[in-house]
Order: sequence, then structure tokens, then C-alpha cells
Amino acid sequence: MSFEVSVFAPASVSNVACGFDVFGFAISGLGDLVRVRRSSDSGPSLVISDVTGDDGLLPREPDRNTAGRAAAAAMKALGIDFGIELEIHKQMPISSGLGSSAASAAGAAAAVAILARNESEKSIDRCQLINSALDGEQLASGGRHADNVAPSLLGGFVLVRSLDPVPDVIEIHPPSWLSCALILPDLSIDTRGARERLGDTVSLSSAIKQWANTATLSLALERGDADMARRALVDHIAEPVRKDSVPGFEDVQKAALSAGALGCSLSGSGPALFALCRDETEDLSETKSVATAMSEALLRGGGCDSRPLATRVATRGAAVDLDLS
Amino acid sequence: MSFEVSVFAPASVSNVACGFDVFGFAISGLGDLVRVRRSSDSGPSLVISDVTGDDGLLPREPDRNTAGRAAAAAMKALGIDFGIELEIHKQMPISSGLGSSAASAAGAAAAVAILARNESEKSIDRCQLINSALDGEQLASGGRHADNVAPSLLGGFVLVRSLDPVPDVIEIHPPSWLSCALILPDLSIDTRGARERLGDTVSLSSAIKQWANTATLSLALERGDADMARRALVDHIAEPVRKDSVPGFEDVQKAALSAGALGCSLSGSGPALFALCRDETEDLSETKSVATAMSEALLRGGGCDSRPLATRVATRGAAVDLDLS
Repeated sequence: MSFEVSVFAPASVSNVACGFDVFGFAISGLGDLVRVRRSSDSGPSLVISDVTGDDGLLPREPDRNTAGRAAAAAMKALGIDFGIELEIHKQMPISSGLGSSAASAAGAAAAVAILARNESEKSIDRCQLINSALDGEQLASGGRHADNVAPSLLGGFVLVRSLDPVPDVIEIHPPSWLSCALILPDLSIDTRGARERLGDTVSLSSAIKQWANTATLSLALERGDADMARRALVDHIAEPVRKDSVPGFEDVQKAALSAGALGCSLSGSGPALFALCRDETEDLSETKSVATAMSEALLRGGGCDSRPLATRVATRGAAVDLDLS
Repeated sequence: MSFEVSVFAPASVSNVACGFDVFGFAISGLGDLVRVRRSSDSGPSLVISDVTGDDGLLPREPDRNTAGRAAAAAMKALGIDFGIELEIHKQMPISSGLGSSAASAAGAAAAVAILARNESEKSIDRCQLINSALDGEQLASGGRHADNVAPSLLGGFVLVRSLDPVPDVIEIHPPSWLSCALILPDLSIDTRGARERLGDTVSLSSAIKQWANTATLSLALERGDADMARRALVDHIAEPVRKDSVPGFEDVQKAALSAGALGCSLSGSGPALFALCRDETEDLSETKSVATAMSEALLRGGGCDSRPLATRVATRGAAVDLDLS
């Protein structure tokens, strides 16, 4: 009797204001549950046997589904020669800016890798796992960017230095007080269009500010220096172009900072907005206040309802049970 | 009898491959010695009484001299109401890419601040001191950039996050094994022209690589991770445009890496080339080997003589005797 592998892949916030395409962190409480088991097929086949929580939006054909693509890529990398059944249980909103497709892809790739280790003692390295998940995520986003996939897989706060020739993903160690206020507006945004709106060039002066800020934020998190983080959490590249896609954005940002947040920007390309906070309370009461202030500001400034959330950085990613160090 | 203040301001390497306009570090052994003393003038006047080591190249009029401008700016910031005599003793080459004008400006501003503290108990804060030195350095470089001035003043390895509205300079803590191989080619480069050649825009894809690398280098130095530093010491912005100004540049870079350096690029806009190394020897023998290999490669590849040097990051800047924390 083959056993079943269940993996939870957390949602994630990418870009993190200053780090377009390079920073991302996993968040607690939202994500995808992915299950895999060996099927009765004798050859290397893949079937998606169940999808829940997606309101019927996700394709069931493995080749058109991000989790299916990622699972297939992992199976190929592992040289799996048996059939697999895959279930996807969405426990987070789709197209929200919180890395939903990345969570599905990361969960599927990790689940297949864990199954393979147990069924056939085959293993996969960290780079192959990230690349497998990227194969899936690329289907949804149109590009190859690991700032959601890597935190979903590895947990924590990561810096994606490069994907070429192999993924170079560095784990940053944020302080225990770091928390994240989120609002999920009732809006939908075209992620591919959001990227095209950025264009192919940026001003040198804005780029200099951006690379000063990525360096500063890395040091601020590593040192646990909240004031330094506050100064660095400014986006000179994507936010100026994309903020109009969330009417009331500036009101939300001002409300978050007034309520004590260190910085506030779009999560990925939005519509979710995040704010990093220094919160040492156990029940995240300060972070909840920030999220509520953001949600109220969005309703006032943009006329849009939103769901407020208070979370921590999730230290466990989908690949927590694999030794990928 | 008024006493005399002597300040040594170290030379510096700016940009440091990936950190155009934001990274800089002070180096041991090269720099400017600046002396100031109260003159017999009753009002706030400034006279340059001596300049040595410049082959007569530097203007003697305070308003046309970087040290003079910086001293005058510091005098104004301090509200000094007496006359000052200034001496500049260059102990480093001019127009070499090692922050010669920044060292003069930093030394003069710091010397005036120390004199004022002793003569009149007037004090200046860190931002005012940096801005005074920038007033001087701007005369030579044509722009307001603190990636040479800040390390000359503060010592160590710094990240200039911003100058607006006030200088935000963050000290990075490099590992004790960090060393720097340098070659000073027999070439001259027009610094202002070097900046104009960069243009006003950069490609988004290159900029993303750059801000991934500044974040990585900051973490690598803070953690003392040599391999991580090696991956980050790549310049996608200035080096591709500027390297042609040093014929044989690529040969030098290859030679440095083959000899064990972590990375090699132009110091500032050159012509000096630097290589960061991991060297735990007391006599810097490994760094000397790298510098020699670089110098030989320049002669072979570019037909140009150069002076090789092996140094450490200088921990003491010009302002070491001022409490600027």
C-alpha cells in the first residue's frame, strides 16, 4: 500500500517594496495544501484527482495547471517511473498578489520530491526543486521569477540573487518581532499586464535608490534594526507605475504608516497590499490595528471593500521535510 | 598659542563592483594629511598655507580647492568666527579613481571640526560633516556622491543609502580577512566624462541584477561569507560601459580571479582597478600575489605599466577623533 504525502505551501509576499523580483517572504495562515500518492498506473503518468477551494477556476488538465506542470517537472527531474495522483486544496485567494500559483507549484514539486524519497529513495537538490516549481509558476505568471516560489518552498524571508545558471536563493534572517499586516481588496489585476506596464528601462537615479534600499533592507532585517528597515521600505520602480491599479493606494499607505507600520506597498503586483510592522505582542494586536486602518482607508479613499489580516513570516515552507541545505 | 590639528583622511574605493554610487570603503596606507591651525586673522578667513605632493596641480585659492571648499563649508556650519590656515599634504595619487578629492575634502572638514571643538567648544553632527565634505568633493567630481567622502570620513566599509534630505550612511562590518589588491595604471581618465557615458537610463533586467547583488554583498560582508561575496561582486551597470577606458581590463579581471580574488572591477571610474580578496596572512602575501598578477596582466593585455598594492580596509577615517555616532 502506497502512502500519501500532504504538503502545505504558504502564500508569500514578493517584491517587498524595494526588492522587485528579488525579495519575498512566506506568510503564516494562507496557502495551498497539496496531496500526492502513487497511482495504480505502471508508467510515469500524472492525474489531478481533486481540486477544492478554487471556485472551479483552475484547469484540471495537468499540463495547463501550475501544480500539474510543477509536479511533472519534478517527476522528470527525479526520473520517476510510476504514476502519481495529485490533489490541490486552495486555502488562499487566487490572483490576489499573494503568490497563489507559486504556492500550488511549490507544494506540488515538494510533495512529489517527498513521495519519491519515500517510494524510491530518489532525491532532488534545492536548485532542481526550485526549477521544477518555476516551470509550474511560469505558466501562470508568464515569466520566470522565484520571489514567490522560493519563499513558498523554503519558508522565511529570501533574496533571489539570480536564476542563471542555477537558482541562487539566500535566506535572510528577520527579527522575531517582524509581522505583516495585509489587506485583500475586492479587485482583480492582470499580473502579466502589470509587468508590461513597467517597460524595459528605468532611470539610473531611481535604480540607484533601489539598490541602496535592497542593501539597506537586508542589513536592517539581519540586524533587527526597525528604523533602518523603515528607511529602506520604499519602492522607486514598480509602485510608482502600478499603484493606480488600486484606487486609494496612497490613502492606505499613509494609514499604515500613521498606524505605526515600517513600510507599506503592493504585495507582488497587487491587489493585495502589505505593511511590515514591528510587533512584539503575542496576539499580533498591533498588526491587526494596522490592517484595520489600511482596510478602512481603502474603503474611504477607494470605495473598495477588503479583508484585513495580521500574520507573521512563516518559517516553514513546503520543502520543510526535505533536506535542501 | 593656538594648537594645530593634523588629520589623516584615507583613500577609498567606491562603487565596489555592484554598488554604483552607494558602496565605498577606506583603504590603508594611502590618503591625505590635512593640517589646520588658527591664524592671526580676527575674522572668519581661510588661507591655504601649504600644499605638497600634488606636483603643483591643485589650485591654492581656497574657493577653487576641494579641501578649501570643504573647510569653508565646515567653518560656516560651525559658525567659526576666527581665521584658519590649512595645509594639504597629498600622500596618494590624484585622478586615480581612489577618491583623492574626497580624501582632501574629508580631511579638511574633519580637521576644522576638531579645531573648532578644541578652540571654541563648537560641534558639528555627522550629517553636517558629510555635507561639508561633499561641498568640497563636488567641486572636483561635478556631482554630489558620498561613496568616497563617507568612507574617507568614517573609515570602514559604508553604504550610502541616500543624501536626501540628509546623508543616510550605514556602516557595514566586513570580516577581518577582507583585503584589497589594487593596481594604479599609468593612465588618466576624465571622471566627469565617465559619468556622462552611463546615460540617464538602464535596462530593468540589469538593474534587477544589480539590486540583487547589492543586497547579497551586504549580507556576505556582514556574515563573512566569501563565496556569497564572490557571486555578488559583479557590475552590470558601470563596468560594461567604462571598462574600455582601461585597455586590458578583462585580462586584469581574469588574472585577479585566477589568482584567487573574490571579485575585480574599476575603483570608482578608474583607472585604478581593485580586487577584493580573502586573505588571512599577516603580511598580505596572498593579496600581493593578486596585485602582481593584475599588474602583469595589464602590461600584457593593455601594454600599460601599473603600480601594484595590497591593502586592508582602513578602520579609521578622518573623523575618528570626533564623536559622530
